[in-house]
Amino acid sequence: MSKTVGEFELIRRFFMQHQPHPSVVLGNGDDAALLQAAPGQVLAVSTDMLVQGRHFFADVDAYALGHKALAVNLSDMAAMGAQPVALTLALALGAEQQRAEWLQAFAAGLFDMARAHGCVLVGGDTTAGPLNVCITIMGEVPPLQALKRSGAQVGDDIYVSGDLGRARVALEALRSGWGLHPQHALLPSCRERLERPQPRVPLGLALRGVAHACADVSDGLLADLGHILQASGVSAQLHVEALLNSPACPASVRALPLQHALTALLAGGDDYELVFTAPAFKRAAVDALQTSLGLPLTRIGQVLPAPPAGPRCALVNAQGQPFELPVGVALKGFDHFA
Amino acid sequence: MSKTVGEFELIRRFFMQHQPHPSVVLGNGDDAALLQAAPGQVLAVSTDMLVQGRHFFADVDAYALGHKALAVNLSDMAAMGAQPVALTLALALGAEQQRAEWLQAFAAGLFDMARAHGCVLVGGDTTAGPLNVCITIMGEVPPLQALKRSGAQVGDDIYVSGDLGRARVALEALRSGWGLHPQHALLPSCRERLERPQPRVPLGLALRGVAHACADVSDGLLADLGHILQASGVSAQLHVEALLNSPACPASVRALPLQHALTALLAGGDDYELVFTAPAFKRAAVDALQTSLGLPLTRIGQVLPAPPAGPRCALVNAQGQPFELPVGVALKGFDHFA
Repeated sequence: MSKTVGEFELIRRFFMQHQPHPSVVLGNGDDAALLQAAPGQVLAVSTDMLVQGRHFFADVDAYALGHKALAVNLSDMAAMGAQPVALTLALALGAEQQRAEWLQAFAAGLFDMARAHGCVLVGGDTTAGPLNVCITIMGEVPPLQALKRSGAQVGDDIYVSGDLGRARVALEALRSGWGLHPQHALLPSCRERLERPQPRVPLGLALRGVAHACADVSDGLLADLGHILQASGVSAQLHVEALLNSPACPASVRALPLQHALTALLAGGDDYELVFTAPAFKRAAVDALQTSLGLPLTRIGQVLPAPPAGPRCALVNAQGQPFELPVGVALKGFDHFA
Repeated sequence: MSKTVGEFELIRRFFMQHQPHPSVVLGNGDDAALLQAAPGQVLAVSTDMLVQGRHFFADVDAYALGHKALAVNLSDMAAMGAQPVALTLALALGAEQQRAEWLQAFAAGLFDMARAHGCVLVGGDTTAGPLNVCITIMGEVPPLQALKRSGAQVGDDIYVSGDLGRARVALEALRSGWGLHPQHALLPSCRERLERPQPRVPLGLALRGVAHACADVSDGLLADLGHILQASGVSAQLHVEALLNSPACPASVRALPLQHALTALLAGGDDYELVFTAPAFKRAAVDALQTSLGLPLTRIGQVLPAPPAGPRCALVNAQGQPFELPVGVALKGFDHFA
């Protein structure tokens, strides 16, 4: 029991699944997999690496890690409006993880998430080393309907899906930050969000033909909206009070002192919601999506022309005047070297 | 000087190259890249992860690491007969690597190798953490010409490209194994092979329509030939004496005691040559390739029917009798958990 297992045996036992997929010409087990996008579609490709101490704690639950590692990649597919198809998995495993129990739980978390979004494992690599999970995800999207960051247009509304900040509240509480106790009453819903985020793949698919530009909120709302503004060469104003009083601000964030609530909302990180822009004549379509998906889509601002100095994002209050940030708000986008 | 740099700044400075490629619809800088294989081709996808202490030494030269990390991935494209198109790069960087000098040298090694094989960087991820390099490579191949492991047929000749064992000699010498001194006279050519392998991409492309089955030799000749035999449901006999007296056995290996020479040749690891099978009527075509590519292609055995117990690989001498392995030969395939 609890034996470590050799590399080939390990791959065979836990990861050598052969699930058929119409776009997978050749699955795992060869030097490379072969993929063919459906007619009229191209392949969207993205990669994310998760490292202990940066993206998860040393005592992370193996199932949750398998879930999250794939979820953060699926979030990139959602942001692109792509239907997930396939993934490769590269794993560096410490001694603790080279046990059948750990690998079985990790694989279950990963494959449950893969099945939920219709994608299959087509290749990978395993090695001993400090725990590291690197997934590359591939999906399909008609090229002209892909939700690029660069498509925002002056006059567009800006929306964010779901709610923001819960993962950050959990992270702060687990670190005893912000005066929060690890047993903080609202923590379970926050910790669930930190450890088992739900990528917004159905929303991404539904936004084809509706949104002009889209990004997923992984580094914090302002940082990721900033990517859209930079790529599109436009500015924005963000209605901070509207955001604070909307479904995008969950109870666990609203309960915090204002400077922490704003930090969690605007620069929380690990949210895996979508921020997108859409023209005003699509408001009814966006409203209909809220209902059909059962997911709040909160209008939080507008796209404006950029001044000659370059794109900027203005925070405004209900009267359209500059919103005065209280002392203690930390608005830097989440930086994995910070 | 030698400052660490923030994540976004780091990506922008060293990795945000936008090289055009006809199959890259959208390059890096968005949530995902968009790839479209040329008409009649599919995308081959493979991933490899390199970890300090397993795949390279702590004091590895940054340029060589960039070179090798991509080379081992390109080797999988070669083994598939695919033309490299694009790569994603995920990097976990320790404090030592978060310096402009290190990153610049690493990027130079990577991009020099990418340019040499016509592929472009389309995405990635960077984080702080124990040094880890994970690359996913994508290439194009007509699906019916892909060099799968499963295509070997009874009666096929078995070939190996280039030479084997030099990387293993370097590794043993650097560890003072096999009684070798780190200053071993033949080490420079061996160390070059260990640290800067040359993927056999032109050979892989030339083997379309010639080879029945192919794999790259990364874990050792017997282990990787074994993958072909397993996938194809066939056995093989390997002419050990012919191999020892062929260009596939370099001077630095021939100079070793027989048990070490055989270990290096048959189970060396990190060779990044190709092992392939081809029907006997293609011998002239294979000979022509040796000349046109300037690369030895040594015929080392034949494919035989597998007995009911399953595929096996028999080592034979010049008379076709079982080759008696001297004591001390270690034939286990290179296992990254060993």
